[in-house]
Amino acid sequence: MSDKPSLPKGTRDFGPQQMAKRNYILNTIRGVFETYGFMPLETPAMENLSVLTGKYGDEGDQLLFKILNSGDYLSKVEKPIDKSAKELLPKIAEKGLKYDLTVPFARYVVMNRHDITLPFKRYQIQPVWRADRPQKGRYREFFQCDADVIGTDSLICEAEIIMMMNSTLGKLGLSDYTIKLNNRKVLTGITEAIGAPGKESDFCVAIDKLDKIGLEKVLEELSDRGLSDDSIQKVVPILEITGDTQEKIEKLKTILATSETGLAGIQEIEAVFSLAKTMEGDLSKVNFDITLARGLSYYTGAIFEIQVNNVKIGSISGGGRYDNLTGVFGMPNMSGVGFSFGVDRLYDVLEELGLFPEESLTSTQALIIHFDAPSQNFGLGVAAALRKSGIKTEIYPDKAKIKKQFTYADKKNIPYTIIIGSEEMASKNLTFRNMQTGTEEKLTVDQIIEKLS
Amino acid sequence: MSDKPSLPKGTRDFGPQQMAKRNYILNTIRGVFETYGFMPLETPAMENLSVLTGKYGDEGDQLLFKILNSGDYLSKVEKPIDKSAKELLPKIAEKGLKYDLTVPFARYVVMNRHDITLPFKRYQIQPVWRADRPQKGRYREFFQCDADVIGTDSLICEAEIIMMMNSTLGKLGLSDYTIKLNNRKVLTGITEAIGAPGKESDFCVAIDKLDKIGLEKVLEELSDRGLSDDSIQKVVPILEITGDTQEKIEKLKTILATSETGLAGIQEIEAVFSLAKTMEGDLSKVNFDITLARGLSYYTGAIFEIQVNNVKIGSISGGGRYDNLTGVFGMPNMSGVGFSFGVDRLYDVLEELGLFPEESLTSTQALIIHFDAPSQNFGLGVAAALRKSGIKTEIYPDKAKIKKQFTYADKKNIPYTIIIGSEEMASKNLTFRNMQTGTEEKLTVDQIIEKLS
Repeated sequence: MSDKPSLPKGTRDFGPQQMAKRNYILNTIRGVFETYGFMPLETPAMENLSVLTGKYGDEGDQLLFKILNSGDYLSKVEKPIDKSAKELLPKIAEKGLKYDLTVPFARYVVMNRHDITLPFKRYQIQPVWRADRPQKGRYREFFQCDADVIGTDSLICEAEIIMMMNSTLGKLGLSDYTIKLNNRKVLTGITEAIGAPGKESDFCVAIDKLDKIGLEKVLEELSDRGLSDDSIQKVVPILEITGDTQEKIEKLKTILATSETGLAGIQEIEAVFSLAKTMEGDLSKVNFDITLARGLSYYTGAIFEIQVNNVKIGSISGGGRYDNLTGVFGMPNMSGVGFSFGVDRLYDVLEELGLFPEESLTSTQALIIHFDAPSQNFGLGVAAALRKSGIKTEIYPDKAKIKKQFTYADKKNIPYTIIIGSEEMASKNLTFRNMQTGTEEKLTVDQIIEKLS
Repeated sequence: MSDKPSLPKGTRDFGPQQMAKRNYILNTIRGVFETYGFMPLETPAMENLSVLTGKYGDEGDQLLFKILNSGDYLSKVEKPIDKSAKELLPKIAEKGLKYDLTVPFARYVVMNRHDITLPFKRYQIQPVWRADRPQKGRYREFFQCDADVIGTDSLICEAEIIMMMNSTLGKLGLSDYTIKLNNRKVLTGITEAIGAPGKESDFCVAIDKLDKIGLEKVLEELSDRGLSDDSIQKVVPILEITGDTQEKIEKLKTILATSETGLAGIQEIEAVFSLAKTMEGDLSKVNFDITLARGLSYYTGAIFEIQVNNVKIGSISGGGRYDNLTGVFGMPNMSGVGFSFGVDRLYDVLEELGLFPEESLTSTQALIIHFDAPSQNFGLGVAAALRKSGIKTEIYPDKAKIKKQFTYADKKNIPYTIIIGSEEMASKNLTFRNMQTGTEEKLTVDQIIEKLS
C-alpha cells in the first residue's frame, strides 16, 4: 500500500507551470479556430473496438489500448482457456481508447447525420492514446488538435486553413516557418507525365525522403520500387525544379500538359493562392512543395505541412483534403479538408525559442502578506476587494514569517505582493511591491486595483 | 466494417451546442478558482492499478476500468488458463482509468513533494471513469471539477470556499440555493453528548436520511444500529434544534458543553463564518446543518454541500477538510480542504431554469452571405477585415441560394448576417441583418466591426 507511486510509462502529469504554457498554446489555437467559425466537439475517451479496429492498419490495431469488459470478463470464455491473446481478445474486451480524433469524428458525423448542418466546421482538442514504445517527444497519451470542415469542396476552405496557420503561428510569436502546400492531383499528374501511372504510392514514399537522403538515393529507391529508367530520367528535371511558387507552377504546367489530373491540381493550387490573396493573406511563407506527400492514401486534393525553420523538430502541423471521411461506416461521399497542430511539438518549439510570454506563466497576480492576526484580518478585506474586481489574489492563509511569505510568492511566480502592517492599516496606504524589480510604493486599495486591472 | 457505429454505453459525445454550454460552466468555475489563486493540474487518464486499487473499497475496485497490457498480454500466463477473472487480472492488466481526481492528486503530490510549494492550491477539471450501471444522469465517463488547498489548516481556506461557491453560483445566475456547512467534530461531539461515543458512523448514516424518511424512521434506524434508548432520547432535541445559524450555535454550545471535540467544532464553524464576514461574504445562503454528514470517514473538519432549491436534483457541490490525503502512499500528515462541483448536475440545473445566456450559445458572430462569384470574392475581404478585429466570422464557402445560406445561419445560431450583392459592392454599404429580429440596416465594414466588437 505504501509503495512509492508511479506513472504509467509514456504518460505525464501537467503541473501548474506546464498547464499555463499548454493553455497559452491551446487558447491561442482555439481563438483562431473560432474566429474562422469552427466549433468545438468532444468525443469520449473510450470507443467500441468495432469502431476503432481496422482503421489504422495492422500496426495501428496493435497499438490500440484495449479495455477489459467490466465485471466477470471471462464469463463468455470456456475454461480452461487455450487461446492466443489475439483469439481471446474479442471475448474479453469490447472497448478501446481512441487512437486519433479522425475516426471518432467520422463516427460522430455518421451517428448525427440528420442533425448536422453542412458545411460542418468542427475543431477537437483532446488526448489520444497509443501503445507505442515511449521515447523522447513520443508519449502514450498525447493531445491532438484537429480542425476540419466537411460537406463542401470549396477551395475557400483551403485558403482559410493557410490564413489560420499564419494567424496561429503569428500570435504565438513564430515568424520563421514555411507552410508547404502540394496537391495529390499534382503527384498523380507527375506519375502520369513520367510514364508511371498508378505508381504514386512508390513515388511518394521515395521522394518524401529527398531532404534526408538526397536525389541520388531517391532515384535508386525509385528504381528498386520498379520505376523504369525512362521514368526516372523524366522525373529528375521535375524534382530539380526551382524558383518561387509562380515559377514552379509555370514550369509544371508545361510538364503536366498531357495530364488532366495534374493540370487540375495545379489549377487548385493557383486558386488557393488567389483566394488567400483576396483575404489579404500573407503568402510569403507559403511554398508550393512538389515533394510533399503525407499519408497519401487518404488525401485527394490539397496537402499541407508546416516546418519551423532553424529548430530541429519535425513538422508542427499538417493536413489535407479527403473525399471519403465516413465511407468506412457506410456513409459515402463525405468530403472535407482539415489540419491539425502538434501541440507537444509546438510546446517544445516555443520553449526552445523562449517564446512563452511572461504573462502566460503568471497565475496569481498579487499575494497579500501580513505580520500578525490583525493585519491578516485587514488583508482579508483587501483580498475581497481585489477579487471583486477580477484580480487573481491570494492571501497567505497561515501566520508565518514575512520571508516565508515572500518565498511563496517567488516560487509561485506571483509578480506583486501587498504588504500590510500596522502602519499600512493606520494610513490605508499599503506597501505594493514589484517582485521582479524589488520596487515598492505606497498605494490605496483602489490604486492597486487600477494598477492590476 | 460498414456496421452502424455506436458509442460505448454510458458515454456521450459533446456536440457544439453542448460544448458551448459546458464551456460556459467550466470557464465560469475556472475563472473563480483562479481569482482565488488556484492553479490547474492535469493527470493522465491512465494510472497504474497499484495506485488505484484499494482506495475506493471493494465496490470501487470492481468499478475500475482496467486496461489490457499491450502486445501479447498473455505472455506471463501459463496455459491452459484455469483461473478466475480476478486471479487472472493482475497478470494481464497493470493500468486502469482514473476513478476520481483525488487519488491521482495524492499521487502527484507524493511524486512531486520536493517541487511543490505549500500551501499548494490546485484545481483539476477532467473526466473520470466508472463501470457503473448507466442510468439517467449517471454516466460511465463524466467530468469532475475539484479544487483543493493542502499544507495548511487555516480556516481562511474554508471561508474562501464559501466565497467561491457564492461567486460561482452568482455568476451562473443561480440565486435560490443553500450552502450547508457542518463539522465532523460537531458530529463526534453529538455522539459523545448522547452517550454513544464511537457510534459516529451509524449516527451519520441514519441522520443523513432525515429529509427523506423523517424523524420517526431515523430513530428506528438508530435503535436498529445499536444506540441505546437513552441515547435516542437525548438525540431527539438535538435533531429538533431550529433557528438560524447563530441560534443553533448557542443551543449546541450548551448541549455539547462536556465534549471538547464538539466545542472545537462549534468554534471552527464560528470562525469560518467570521472570516467569511470579514471578506464581505454573503452568508445569507449559508446554513449550519447539523445533519450534514457526507462520506464521514474521510473528513475531519468542515463539511460542505450545496443544494439548489426548487429543483429536483441532488447536491451540486460538496467537500470538506481532511487530514491525511497522501497517507495511503506513505506520506503522512498532509492535510487540506477541498470541494468540487458536479458539472453534469449544474448543467441540468441551468438547463431546467433556462439560465444559459444567449451569448454563451453563440459561436460564430456573423455569416457573410453572397449572390455570386464576384460578391463572394468581395465577401472574402470583408471576412478578413472582421477576423482581424477578432470577430468570429464565416463566409458561406459554396455558391448557394440565399435561402440555404440563411438556413445555415439559423441552424448554427449565428446572430448576424452580412448580405453582399452588386448594390452593396458598389456603395460599400453592406446589408447587416439581425437574424432574431429580422431588422436590416446598411453599414460599412468599419461600422459593422464597431457593432460587433
